[in-house]
Amino acid sequence: MNQSDLPSSAFIDPRGGNKEAVQQLAGRMTELILSHLQTARERPPLPRGVQFPRAVGIPESPLEEDEILNQLRAMLASSMNAAHPGFIGHMDSTPAAISVLGEMVSAAVNNNMLSLEMSPLFSRLESQLLREFAKLFGLGERAGGVMLSGGTLANLQALAVARNAKLDTLKKGLAGVARPPVLFASEAAHTSIQKASMLLGLGTIAVVAVRANSDSQMEAEELRRAIERAKREGKTPFCAVATAGTTTTGSIDPLRDIAAVTREHGLWLHVDAAYGGALILSESQRHRLNGIEQADSVTFNPQKWLYVAKTCAMVLFRDMETFVGAFRVQAPYMADSGEFINLGEISVQGTRHAEALKLWLALQYIGKRGYAQLIDEGYRLAELVAQEIRRRPFLQLASKPETNVVCFRGAPPRTAPEEWDNWNANLQAHLLRSGSTFLSLPLYRGNRWLRAVLLNPFADDESIRELFKHVDAFAETGK
Amino acid sequence: MNQSDLPSSAFIDPRGGNKEAVQQLAGRMTELILSHLQTARERPPLPRGVQFPRAVGIPESPLEEDEILNQLRAMLASSMNAAHPGFIGHMDSTPAAISVLGEMVSAAVNNNMLSLEMSPLFSRLESQLLREFAKLFGLGERAGGVMLSGGTLANLQALAVARNAKLDTLKKGLAGVARPPVLFASEAAHTSIQKASMLLGLGTIAVVAVRANSDSQMEAEELRRAIERAKREGKTPFCAVATAGTTTTGSIDPLRDIAAVTREHGLWLHVDAAYGGALILSESQRHRLNGIEQADSVTFNPQKWLYVAKTCAMVLFRDMETFVGAFRVQAPYMADSGEFINLGEISVQGTRHAEALKLWLALQYIGKRGYAQLIDEGYRLAELVAQEIRRRPFLQLASKPETNVVCFRGAPPRTAPEEWDNWNANLQAHLLRSGSTFLSLPLYRGNRWLRAVLLNPFADDESIRELFKHVDAFAETGK
Repeated sequence: MNQSDLPSSAFIDPRGGNKEAVQQLAGRMTELILSHLQTARERPPLPRGVQFPRAVGIPESPLEEDEILNQLRAMLASSMNAAHPGFIGHMDSTPAAISVLGEMVSAAVNNNMLSLEMSPLFSRLESQLLREFAKLFGLGERAGGVMLSGGTLANLQALAVARNAKLDTLKKGLAGVARPPVLFASEAAHTSIQKASMLLGLGTIAVVAVRANSDSQMEAEELRRAIERAKREGKTPFCAVATAGTTTTGSIDPLRDIAAVTREHGLWLHVDAAYGGALILSESQRHRLNGIEQADSVTFNPQKWLYVAKTCAMVLFRDMETFVGAFRVQAPYMADSGEFINLGEISVQGTRHAEALKLWLALQYIGKRGYAQLIDEGYRLAELVAQEIRRRPFLQLASKPETNVVCFRGAPPRTAPEEWDNWNANLQAHLLRSGSTFLSLPLYRGNRWLRAVLLNPFADDESIRELFKHVDAFAETGK
Repeated sequence: MNQSDLPSSAFIDPRGGNKEAVQQLAGRMTELILSHLQTARERPPLPRGVQFPRAVGIPESPLEEDEILNQLRAMLASSMNAAHPGFIGHMDSTPAAISVLGEMVSAAVNNNMLSLEMSPLFSRLESQLLREFAKLFGLGERAGGVMLSGGTLANLQALAVARNAKLDTLKKGLAGVARPPVLFASEAAHTSIQKASMLLGLGTIAVVAVRANSDSQMEAEELRRAIERAKREGKTPFCAVATAGTTTTGSIDPLRDIAAVTREHGLWLHVDAAYGGALILSESQRHRLNGIEQADSVTFNPQKWLYVAKTCAMVLFRDMETFVGAFRVQAPYMADSGEFINLGEISVQGTRHAEALKLWLALQYIGKRGYAQLIDEGYRLAELVAQEIRRRPFLQLASKPETNVVCFRGAPPRTAPEEWDNWNANLQAHLLRSGSTFLSLPLYRGNRWLRAVLLNPFADDESIRELFKHVDAFAETGK
């Protein structure tokens, strides 16, 4: 093509024509991002102000490369700094380096997971990797799945299959369904369940929120009662969602007991193990997932506890045939792919890039043992945090930590309880001002709490000491 | 954390502790992918066989870096080679180099578009950029949107908003809707419309396929008749989808005429401009989108004709308030973000990475004028291809090319028409064997056709000559 108005490294010439220019650009961008992350400790975990770039629009002519890189540098300074060792506020982390580079490779070859023709290797790689995960979770030989750009989509896809499989709605929709279909999830379940219910035409009211116990777990007996109540009310229960690793407290529902209830009532069992699924790689923690092998579908997000750059999520089904039969929408314009079903026909997405590659790279680079170590270390640090909390009478734990998430709050006796929300918000701000630690401030059971997620590979005993030094200083002065 | 079992460059140390190791790894990966793409011309546009990696599983211990890189090299050799100058078979291209590097930067800082707290700059950047695009499309001052990981999701989100806005189904779902809701789209519309209808609980039957004319366009009169018929049948028409750039022939529906019909009948008008939306950047071609300014929602995918590495897609709404009111599902655990609505609450996705960054970078790096040149060149080459086709009596055009897509087939008079499908499949295989050109082989009106998408920035007059040299050689020998 005639490219006279384009910078010489707009595209990588497949004949090597602009080798130097492209290498220089790649070198500059790599240097920019590495030096940014290698000095992450010097900037606070969250930026103190956001500097908006001068030019957000679409310029007539290309900007100078220097100008673009300068603006990019400024943007990074205004970004969430998850690489800071004191960033322990979310289920988000600095990612495994190889997964970042893998993302660049996927982007560069720009294969399309829509069809086997457009991703001859990566489509197969994804399917094979997911079969491996399905086996790890004990879902058996008929199991498999698809990857999705985030756990919300994974939950959507699981519930779409559950709805179609149980209520036969693929072709004819919900029009013919007389008794309103309902699904059950813990009140502590992720909002994506409500969003999925809304999208699926069930409405947000179709999600029956089952009361959780004081440790944020949905108990089987409560679920059973909720199902029976719904039946008495003339509704059609078709699915229950158990959570392995709730968003706020990291709690795990008793999966085995729940599986017994869903089996008894003929409900689809979906386990949202977006966060907790990683425990399957740790010998010492795996037992917490007991019962997951009985799920009909499982959401698992390597983008969280496996440190793969986001997005990277999957939904697994215990029976691929049921899944495909209840979901597939064929695309006549796609090349026939023989026995292999084009992934675009069995995913809520169509065109996708090869997120399987960065996952594969991270698994090869870190290995089961490396992941087990990261997970077990998270537990050790979480226990340290919990100990420090228990040691201080003015602090309360939201629930017994079951993963590497510790949710707590200040409940200082000399402060009126109605002031505690403010007190905790001020403590969060104090920690941020100190530049040492970022804790998030979730709403939980109607109040503000502080949440530590011990996921950061550079958090250590010293980070915890630092955190509580600041907590104590704040508690003393109250500001 | 204790990281004794991990390779030294597993994570980028925020204090610069493993600077050399990380730089070396980044350098090796960059070199690997650049040298792969800079020699893309030497490999065929599609790999001749797929070499599956030895280790797809999850190893106990990390593999050696050399071993991983060797396997990665082999994987790339088995991938779709969109960078080959003769790769003109799909709406997929070698991406703008800066967008690939931008994707690496997004992955490295790992910000989360779920909430403003986790992407303080990128959330705002996305919203601002999308307002700019909405203005370009003429949607006005109240317009805006969200980005999504692919056009299928953008269509899903648009139709979810249309359904909720027109039928009030956000909370209570479809249970109370008496007359079956239906939507209308051209028979040439993308499958994602059917998939969305299935997901939304309307079922695939709710999509009324409106007959297209001989140029694959949905005419307003046909749409009107279909709406009236549905009403007579007791259905509830609520939405019509017009397409600007159909998948197979790149055709554009007459948007202005269609807008008049949807207005008359009070239907939501969604324009799927996933492909054709790019024309808005070309002075000489923009007029083909006339009428798009009347849409209630628009899908547009920079991952196609703006050469941004996939995925990169957006859905725009003419009225942000209507959109938010008809979609928002709040997440109580997210930090309050003041006036800015957390993007995770108004998107079918939750956790997302910052795809806005690579789009912003590509726009700054290439500029409107650069894009206009790429688009206009695509038209010039498409016209060249069409001329070559018209010059050969044994070739037929599927429709008058309206974008840079030319769909055609061989209809050799000396071959029986029932053999034409085979003949075209064999021609496609012949072109692939020659190593010069990849054309796709879509099913269109019940037959196999050949499709050229003149999107490749390294395709030129010589590529076209080469293509028809091989077509003629094949036509002569018939094999």
